[in-house]
Amino acid sequence: MKKNVLIIGAGGVGHVVAHKCAMHNDVLGDICIASRTQKKCDTIIESVLRKNNLKDSSKKLYSRRVDAMDIPSLINLIKETQSEIVINVGQPYINMSVLEACIETGAVYMDTAIHEDPDKVCENPPWYGNYEWKRKQRCEENGITAILGIGFDPGVVNSWCALAKDEYFDTIDTIDILDVNAGSHGRYFATNFDPEINFREFKKVWTWNNRQWMLQKVHSIRVDYDFPVVGTQPVYLTGHDELHSLSKNIDANSVRFWMGFGDHYLNVFSVLSNIGLTSEVPVKIANGVEIAPIKVLKALLPDPASLAPGYTGKTCIGNFIKGTKDNQERSVFIYNICDHAECYEELESQAISYTAGVPPVAAAILVARGDWDVKQMVNVEELPARPFVDLLDQMGLLTEIIESPASFTPPVIESLESV
Amino acid sequence: MKKNVLIIGAGGVGHVVAHKCAMHNDVLGDICIASRTQKKCDTIIESVLRKNNLKDSSKKLYSRRVDAMDIPSLINLIKETQSEIVINVGQPYINMSVLEACIETGAVYMDTAIHEDPDKVCENPPWYGNYEWKRKQRCEENGITAILGIGFDPGVVNSWCALAKDEYFDTIDTIDILDVNAGSHGRYFATNFDPEINFREFKKVWTWNNRQWMLQKVHSIRVDYDFPVVGTQPVYLTGHDELHSLSKNIDANSVRFWMGFGDHYLNVFSVLSNIGLTSEVPVKIANGVEIAPIKVLKALLPDPASLAPGYTGKTCIGNFIKGTKDNQERSVFIYNICDHAECYEELESQAISYTAGVPPVAAAILVARGDWDVKQMVNVEELPARPFVDLLDQMGLLTEIIESPASFTPPVIESLESV
Repeated sequence: MKKNVLIIGAGGVGHVVAHKCAMHNDVLGDICIASRTQKKCDTIIESVLRKNNLKDSSKKLYSRRVDAMDIPSLINLIKETQSEIVINVGQPYINMSVLEACIETGAVYMDTAIHEDPDKVCENPPWYGNYEWKRKQRCEENGITAILGIGFDPGVVNSWCALAKDEYFDTIDTIDILDVNAGSHGRYFATNFDPEINFREFKKVWTWNNRQWMLQKVHSIRVDYDFPVVGTQPVYLTGHDELHSLSKNIDANSVRFWMGFGDHYLNVFSVLSNIGLTSEVPVKIANGVEIAPIKVLKALLPDPASLAPGYTGKTCIGNFIKGTKDNQERSVFIYNICDHAECYEELESQAISYTAGVPPVAAAILVARGDWDVKQMVNVEELPARPFVDLLDQMGLLTEIIESPASFTPPVIESLESV
Repeated sequence: MKKNVLIIGAGGVGHVVAHKCAMHNDVLGDICIASRTQKKCDTIIESVLRKNNLKDSSKKLYSRRVDAMDIPSLINLIKETQSEIVINVGQPYINMSVLEACIETGAVYMDTAIHEDPDKVCENPPWYGNYEWKRKQRCEENGITAILGIGFDPGVVNSWCALAKDEYFDTIDTIDILDVNAGSHGRYFATNFDPEINFREFKKVWTWNNRQWMLQKVHSIRVDYDFPVVGTQPVYLTGHDELHSLSKNIDANSVRFWMGFGDHYLNVFSVLSNIGLTSEVPVKIANGVEIAPIKVLKALLPDPASLAPGYTGKTCIGNFIKGTKDNQERSVFIYNICDHAECYEELESQAISYTAGVPPVAAAILVARGDWDVKQMVNVEELPARPFVDLLDQMGLLTEIIESPASFTPPVIESLESV
């Protein structure tokens, strides 16, 4: 039984992770939230207490300041807090240093996105191969449990692929992961998580199609899909983390990711991007100061955490999977509906952060119980799906399945570049 | 006979002023270009020499570095260069210090826009009353010729109002100044002059309507007008410098300004403005640096001077004037057509800078000749129009007049705010 959780990162997802850990601290033990800005951790703790979400008040819930790029500091923090589980929900730039600290201390490592080098955008696939997977052998040698990409997407959607393979299909042809936010935050424009990270997703589209990597232009391939509950929504072929492990671990011809965008969002994004405002390459301004435009844009856009009060509507994230079972063609849509206002009511968050923050806590519980404490580095689809999906059902993220759903039929995708 | 010209400012308009002064240096004498960045002055001088535009090679054409906010430095520069005429085409923040240096040294002062305090945007009208006109009495006492707003608009359009009064009308009802750029620079988005100054025009719309100042929302009142040569173009009610003197000096019921904008321009401007990127109010970014978003936007947008090569199409700026003559209703459209590519051919510029830069040189010639050396502070409509208009005809800016042109009929304008 592992216990005591160290949460690294105090953004919107960290907020949800802290609430959910506190709601299960009888299993998880003491909870420490650490961030570069300790005040953000304390604000989250205030929210947990305000919502009465600390289940066992004999357990500690407290904050620390940490520079997550500084491995010795991280090692000290893990030891000092006696944390056996580390949930990394900071910016993806810190993954490799947090992972290293876990390997050194024996703590369980989890994250929700692939490591990124701030100076490199959309590297060649598979992205895990450039960073985390290089530590696979050391994790195995040291008996380290490292669960990569255990948010919603990547995370739950990967587990649904395992579930499909285990329970629904003999062979899988295509997996199309569809992510749509049909909610409204009432602002002119906002990103639902860190804009710097958000916009990096849109630089290039790598997709796994007919068993090869293909490169596409951003927002160039659109499909309108009739979702359950939220109705018909436009989604666009987009690059995304989970493709980089699913392409390796799941025997399917195509694994693609599609993100929903409204016309207004795309127009604003197109303007900002064409002007150069989403760029991380510094420009020199009149007084000689150099600054990355994206940093200024980030300062101007609403703090994603500030969107939660008053956010209305629902998200729908689902896997449209086609294949065969018992020599019959079969298609299913495995999905979750999450309501922004209900997330706010439960823990002062919104559905984007909620869907990303609940899964790592479910995973931590499975690790604490021993079910998922696998002493090696894995992606989520390599772990048993059923206990995870069932636990999520109890924790607020219900998995629903439609047999023979509305057909999802993308146009023929051809690569713009040979890979 | 006054001579020797000091040009302050080495942007796109300074470029044209330098070329045109050089082309008339037999009258104007030595030409010095001064700017905070001396290299920009030298680049302009290279262009003048490359185009063989230095008429009398026995006269000097040279550069100096100057901080135009520093009055003692300006006084030294005027004395050292023995300049009797100063053409200020720098940012409008420097007007009052350059004017002061002229009053102190006896030099003739000219500018092409109203003074602005960097921290105040769209102050209460009339704008001249807040700054320049406070020096009227000192100019008169010291026999200083100061010609305010002698670009195209303000400038030529003011002179056309005087011309209308002198030669075309007994009474004037409405003056609608229409400014449209029907050219194409081929870039995604660019401003034709300093974006910082450009966007300040769009913060509020002050308009002189039915003999009172009215406040309107930006880009909220549109008229499609059938222009000569460039055809039908949308124009929007906009605030502009010339209204602030014409409302006082010309006996007309309404004097309004309309700027042409395409849908793409308005969309981009709307996004940038709604996000806050056109703001001069500093924001704090992650590392604690404070920066005004407009400075970053300016660094990203094309340098207006870089647009000139390959710029195609034409500008049309004209005054639609309605009134009576000999007890008959009369309407005229007094206008100029300027061709971007021809401007580039003549002096490596484009039509926006050309139309703004030629008029102050014409004025300098009229001052040098004595016609306009009025020993007081004036706006352009207070000076005899005919010699100016005739000289511009010879210098590349032809005035054309249509009797009974296509009707310009704005909707009823009501003030959003009592003034």
